[in-house]
Amino acid sequence: MISFPPSFQKLIRELNRLPSIGEKSAVRLAYHLIQEEKGLADALASALVEAKKQVGLCSQCYFFAEGESCSICQNSSRDRSVICVVEKPMDMAAIERVGEFRGLYHVLHGLWAPLKGMGPESMKLQELISRVKNEQVSEVILATGSTVEGDATALYVARVLEEFGVRTTRLAQGMPKGGELEYADEVTLSRAFSGRNPLSQPQ
Amino acid sequence: MISFPPSFQKLIRELNRLPSIGEKSAVRLAYHLIQEEKGLADALASALVEAKKQVGLCSQCYFFAEGESCSICQNSSRDRSVICVVEKPMDMAAIERVGEFRGLYHVLHGLWAPLKGMGPESMKLQELISRVKNEQVSEVILATGSTVEGDATALYVARVLEEFGVRTTRLAQGMPKGGELEYADEVTLSRAFSGRNPLSQPQ
Repeated sequence: MISFPPSFQKLIRELNRLPSIGEKSAVRLAYHLIQEEKGLADALASALVEAKKQVGLCSQCYFFAEGESCSICQNSSRDRSVICVVEKPMDMAAIERVGEFRGLYHVLHGLWAPLKGMGPESMKLQELISRVKNEQVSEVILATGSTVEGDATALYVARVLEEFGVRTTRLAQGMPKGGELEYADEVTLSRAFSGRNPLSQPQ
Repeated sequence: MISFPPSFQKLIRELNRLPSIGEKSAVRLAYHLIQEEKGLADALASALVEAKKQVGLCSQCYFFAEGESCSICQNSSRDRSVICVVEKPMDMAAIERVGEFRGLYHVLHGLWAPLKGMGPESMKLQELISRVKNEQVSEVILATGSTVEGDATALYVARVLEEFGVRTTRLAQGMPKGGELEYADEVTLSRAFSGRNPLSQPQ
């Protein structure tokens, strides 16, 4: 194997630590940064340092924020009585792309996954509880993913919130748009059946 | 669309400039760097700055080097009479993985691609000529890719080197290992035919 210079190897190793960047991609990225587009190495380094320094979490919903609150919590036109609970900041971005939900969010930064050693303390659950306690919240929408852990977390959070008299709801589960029956998995199909909606009712 | 904090957006934009990193990947990488693995942002930033500062090109073959020469040009056991010409440093790494070639290299850092406005001056060709002139070189292996531009560059470099009385050779072209006739493209098949080798000869 050819030996790259030590500082080039170090760059490859660090790039290789990024998710979904394998060793070959890391080499290609390092080459691009060092040889093909030299300005980018400095720009990226300073963007990393700057973002690391500036970006924190919103003190209410735990989305990314520079300063105390994120842009959504600061927006006075949002409905503050509905909180949509998600696992990650990216989930929040996905919901905002749809552009229909007008309430606030709460990012758990984790899921309840006992098999991975992640208990309730690994997510921002106490913070959600104190929001429900102290603010005028009428509904908490549990928008964690439709995975085993997403479902378990939604059930767990719903149970914990029971005593505060708040309505909890879960995103509908069923066939995705464009989904063909032939290729749907059993769980999706079973949920689509049990959650079926009336189209017309005989008088 | 949700608005990320400015410095987070800037990090996404810089990551998005990397080859094969689309916008969604850039967001995911930025999230990973800022939230999930905080030490990595600093480590990557300093690796970038360090590599940018330390890594230059070998003064002989133009592979990456810290200091004057790369590890291959410094290696006294390499055969200095054969030069293998490649487009990019990564091509050199691919040949070294095979482990059979024992000569030196020359990295062109470009190809002759008139349609893209890349003439001979866009590659390290003068540098190759002066190596052939001034060193005891008996063979130059043209190991640019089997693409239109790789072929054109190989032909062009071979013609330029003609007057120096050095032997120039080109990598064999034909069926790749595991290649099925049924799926081979016409050019590959045509080259495999014209470059066919004898298996046995009637006496």
